Amino acid sequence: MATERLDQQVEFILEIDKLKGVLRRSYLAGGERRENSAEHCWHVAVMTLLLAEYANDSVDPLRVLKMLLIHDIVEIDAGDTFCYDEVGALDKAEREGRAADRLFGLLPDDQAAELRQTWEEFETGTSPEARFARGIDRLMPLLHNYYTQGRAWQEHGITSGQVISRNAHIGEGSQALWQFAEALIEDSVAKGYLTP
Amino acid sequence: MATERLDQQVEFILEIDKLKGVLRRSYLAGGERRENSAEHCWHVAVMTLLLAEYANDSVDPLRVLKMLLIHDIVEIDAGDTFCYDEVGALDKAEREGRAADRLFGLLPDDQAAELRQTWEEFETGTSPEARFARGIDRLMPLLHNYYTQGRAWQEHGITSGQVISRNAHIGEGSQALWQFAEALIEDSVAKGYLTP
Repeated sequence: MATERLDQQVEFILEIDKLKGVLRRSYLAGGERRENSAEHCWHVAVMTLLLAEYANDSVDPLRVLKMLLIHDIVEIDAGDTFCYDEVGALDKAEREGRAADRLFGLLPDDQAAELRQTWEEFETGTSPEARFARGIDRLMPLLHNYYTQGRAWQEHGITSGQVISRNAHIGEGSQALWQFAEALIEDSVAKGYLTP
Repeated sequence: MATERLDQQVEFILEIDKLKGVLRRSYLAGGERRENSAEHCWHVAVMTLLLAEYANDSVDPLRVLKMLLIHDIVEIDAGDTFCYDEVGALDKAEREGRAADRLFGLLPDDQAAELRQTWEEFETGTSPEARFARGIDRLMPLLHNYYTQGRAWQEHGITSGQVISRNAHIGEGSQALWQFAEALIEDSVAKGYLTP
């Protein structure tokens, strides 16, 4: 039984290697190429270690890390849905729900249930940890856009109004980080990276 | 002061974006390309969430995650040293020590000290958490090699004796995972992926 359990865990671990091939719209800060979802998840996890002190409510960093480490795994089947893609958003929940069934379903039942619940908590933002994790997940693409002179924004014709309305929920996790993000957005408009 | 602190943290967060450009010798399980160190760190962090139950000693998963999330950041300056590179190993500690000084030194003093200490704990393997983290860090390349028919081993002329002696310390963190790894190595020899 121990071996069967470990075999299931290893099968999942190999399957999620595919997240390294899922490309996001954001470019790396140096502009060389688009970022993949696996390295994005690493980056937001490290951000959590450093920025948890800015959460509105005291958060358990381990729970935030769990959410951020697994939140994009569904993209292996469902693809990355650009956060400004209104058409893609229509069936995103359905596509990602099917993906969660298959992918987390590779694991032993107890871990499948735990990861599924953790992912749903992130998606629905129903805890201080989930709200903070969702804020961190949005902050990084803002930084990537700012430091590539708004490259992904411009490629997709995104305006400052869209950026503000799509990212304001950062403040639900951390007012301090939302203030920082607002200043970044204002400066992006002032510098011509982002259309008013 | 709050802003100066956040500015330092954001500078570090941007700087470590460069880890996404540090290539390891391992290929992705699908063989498409070599893996980078940032996505590797994500993968071993997820493995920790799933495999901590196999640690020889009870471990604090948050401490293991911290180590694995930051353990390769020094490679931004020092480069990835292939684990079978005996020449590179000679000055690895010195190169990585200088890298740790510069990179962690970008952070506010308290976080710089904490990450430096966490990195050194990982490097020296002085706690159950560090020994487990070091084992997980070695297990993933074995899996990648096995599922690419020994590609990186063959490119660098690695033998099973080298693989066993370089990876046996997995057992210091987890006997169960080392047994699993040993079976994988034996099977790799039997299948011709690895030279006896």
